[in-house]
Amino acid sequence: MELTTVRQIYRDKDSYLNKEVTIGGWVRSLRDSKTFGFIVLNDGSYFDTLQIVYHDTMDNFSEISKLNVGAAIIVTGTLVPTPEAKQPFEIQAAKIDIEGASAPDYPLQKKRHTFEYLRTISHLRPRTNTFQAVFRVRSLIAYAIHQFFQERDFVYVHTPLITGSDCEGAGEMFQVTTMDLKNIPMTQEGAVDFSQDFFGKPTNLTVSGQLNAETYAMAFRNVYTFGPTFRAENSNTTRHAAEFWMIEPEMAFADLQDDMELAESMLKYVIRYVLEHAPEEMNFFNQFVDKELLERLNHVLNSEFAHVTYTEAVELLEKHNEEFDYKVFWGCDLQTEHERYLTEQLYKKPVFVTDYPKEIKAFYMKMNPDNKTVAAVDCLVPGIGEIIGGSQREDDLDKLTARMDELGLKKEDYDFYLDLRKYGSTRHAGFGLGFERCVMYLTGMSNIRDVVPFPRTVNNCEL
Amino acid sequence: MELTTVRQIYRDKDSYLNKEVTIGGWVRSLRDSKTFGFIVLNDGSYFDTLQIVYHDTMDNFSEISKLNVGAAIIVTGTLVPTPEAKQPFEIQAAKIDIEGASAPDYPLQKKRHTFEYLRTISHLRPRTNTFQAVFRVRSLIAYAIHQFFQERDFVYVHTPLITGSDCEGAGEMFQVTTMDLKNIPMTQEGAVDFSQDFFGKPTNLTVSGQLNAETYAMAFRNVYTFGPTFRAENSNTTRHAAEFWMIEPEMAFADLQDDMELAESMLKYVIRYVLEHAPEEMNFFNQFVDKELLERLNHVLNSEFAHVTYTEAVELLEKHNEEFDYKVFWGCDLQTEHERYLTEQLYKKPVFVTDYPKEIKAFYMKMNPDNKTVAAVDCLVPGIGEIIGGSQREDDLDKLTARMDELGLKKEDYDFYLDLRKYGSTRHAGFGLGFERCVMYLTGMSNIRDVVPFPRTVNNCEL
Repeated sequence: MELTTVRQIYRDKDSYLNKEVTIGGWVRSLRDSKTFGFIVLNDGSYFDTLQIVYHDTMDNFSEISKLNVGAAIIVTGTLVPTPEAKQPFEIQAAKIDIEGASAPDYPLQKKRHTFEYLRTISHLRPRTNTFQAVFRVRSLIAYAIHQFFQERDFVYVHTPLITGSDCEGAGEMFQVTTMDLKNIPMTQEGAVDFSQDFFGKPTNLTVSGQLNAETYAMAFRNVYTFGPTFRAENSNTTRHAAEFWMIEPEMAFADLQDDMELAESMLKYVIRYVLEHAPEEMNFFNQFVDKELLERLNHVLNSEFAHVTYTEAVELLEKHNEEFDYKVFWGCDLQTEHERYLTEQLYKKPVFVTDYPKEIKAFYMKMNPDNKTVAAVDCLVPGIGEIIGGSQREDDLDKLTARMDELGLKKEDYDFYLDLRKYGSTRHAGFGLGFERCVMYLTGMSNIRDVVPFPRTVNNCEL
Repeated sequence: MELTTVRQIYRDKDSYLNKEVTIGGWVRSLRDSKTFGFIVLNDGSYFDTLQIVYHDTMDNFSEISKLNVGAAIIVTGTLVPTPEAKQPFEIQAAKIDIEGASAPDYPLQKKRHTFEYLRTISHLRPRTNTFQAVFRVRSLIAYAIHQFFQERDFVYVHTPLITGSDCEGAGEMFQVTTMDLKNIPMTQEGAVDFSQDFFGKPTNLTVSGQLNAETYAMAFRNVYTFGPTFRAENSNTTRHAAEFWMIEPEMAFADLQDDMELAESMLKYVIRYVLEHAPEEMNFFNQFVDKELLERLNHVLNSEFAHVTYTEAVELLEKHNEEFDYKVFWGCDLQTEHERYLTEQLYKKPVFVTDYPKEIKAFYMKMNPDNKTVAAVDCLVPGIGEIIGGSQREDDLDKLTARMDELGLKKEDYDFYLDLRKYGSTRHAGFGLGFERCVMYLTGMSNIRDVVPFPRTVNNCEL
């Protein structure tokens, strides 16, 4: 069908004014009198709506006047300027075809609904203002990230979702199996007989594509992943989901400094992109979701991120220990309350915290000369806390295997990873960006369930 | 580190000629004499390599001469033109730092390796010419697809991977669970007690995001998914993987004709994009993988796709039944041999086959007025067969539920889907593009295991 979109009309109104257009969309509201009526129409292409005026000269006038909110219609009419009205123009309809009526029990009436209620109708909530804005911006952020890396010739690598190994040894994993759960085959020794499973061995859903991405960085130099990852953590917070998307760039011939520069330019690029491509949505968030959003994002664009070592950060935080539930001391893992204090109270902007104690970081991070800390970095942002975690990787075979021995990791499980240090090893670094946290940061939305189209959390896997 | 890439040098050589540059990369080959030597270097940024000349005036001359293939080095030197040589320029090295040596048993020596062998070292194969080309082009195709849809204001939707329902009732699925497989909890009635599983119910890996995408199309009008999907089919072919990526656009206010127009423009867009952005790689494929590749792709760019109904196609194919393993008759599902015969022998270009018997297609496809066929379409391409499958969706609530009753589908499992027909239903259509098949089609590679970085197939889940 040849339809004009509301976006085209708003973006290029001079081409359409006083001309006939045909648009298709859904009724947001309808008021009628005896001889004419008004329909507020949204066609999903644009945040703002379009007003349609129709008259009783139409054959189906009374049918239209009976339409419920949510109905789908196709309108042909003339776009006319409305200098006296709030909206810049409206359509004087010549013809309205009803594509699909809407039942009177349509769950989205004109009143305000709570986010909690809308979560129970995840298939309909994208029709509301808030979720139109959230999910369009989510889409733009995803694209901005691809554009950022592709402009810099990073190769996009699809690392596997089903994996036979646990990359970081981190967190609970989901098992993947085709065996009959009612009747799991067992060996004579009483173990699960995985030889009868699809892959012939135990498999899980990935928690990170990093180790795989490193193999590609050693071939392409600069690569990135952008795909789903999974954590089966039994935590019911506003910031954790069992299924979420991650971006993991990895660069060869790069150190921690390069890593931070990449992270900072990426975040700024993405902020700039959404401000430019979704001004209506961003204004809406600023007005109705988080009144400091635009100020904060613009401040980030115009400032250098702060840098502080873990050791310095601990010294700073210790002075405020009375304000924390968990007291800070050197060697402790920083909690969200500490991270937010650093970025919100002390620096009031994004901050890179570097050089963490090796004990609280993963085995593959590069040992610093002090032999106590590793070349790790977390990027903390106001309102969220940690949004990015990265490191320079240990590229020295002997140091890496020594560390694996200390931690009791089986080297035979990491043959491929050690090969990278045997054959043309080079300094390299990367980070992981939690995509949903990034969307929360850029929209001001405070619950991860409201930035994922169909969220998966403990005891919740609807649709 | 501030390094110049080989890509920058090739793309903008005038800026670098006769100037000092520093590049980092891996040794592809090395020949030395007593007083000087040559290194062929690849830095992963560009398909072509760069020649380095070094002399015994360097302190570490003998160390360099002992380097094995695969070693990582950082070279500083002057880029000089070489008008007499095959390559356009080379680097006269002033300094070579060894980042990481390579052990003499490096598995990628200068000889040709079979694809079968390279599959056993999936972490190293991207360092070979063929797989550098494949995986760079894979990345470019992915980006071209995003660009195509984003330029047209389609909203990218991340449909869920873990799902409580089986969208198409199609194919074997992988189960996802956190229960102890050795000790599955059972109810008193002897069933698996899923209330003790992470989501409190049985869950699987998705086979398609379509039904979820439809809910977003009814809000945003034009949307697309691009994510992993899974099939636990026990089929060991060159075209099936257990984990693969799919693109599924969905458009509201659109019919089958719109669907085919979108599919054709998308494929042409992507072909144009890779020809423009990866000419070296595409020439390589044409020379070493499939000698008709460029001719075929250019032919596609310059022709309209053919259109034929299933009924007409069956009539055409029946005439050649003696050539097929499976005989064709009206009502049969077309096999790959039939699809390839149509596109390769009869039309010699991509062809859309439409209006299939309802019995061999999914419940949600729109019934045609003949009540025998549905508004489905498959796009067949030479060398592959089916690359795209799509349909207009049944938007009439009564017809849809009648069809579900016929097929014995439980309506309560599809409440959300039926809601879309209750509240503002409109004609809509979409399709699924198998991403790996698309990569095979554009590169000429004939085994899906060679276009997936870390392929997952029956009994195979390495790394």
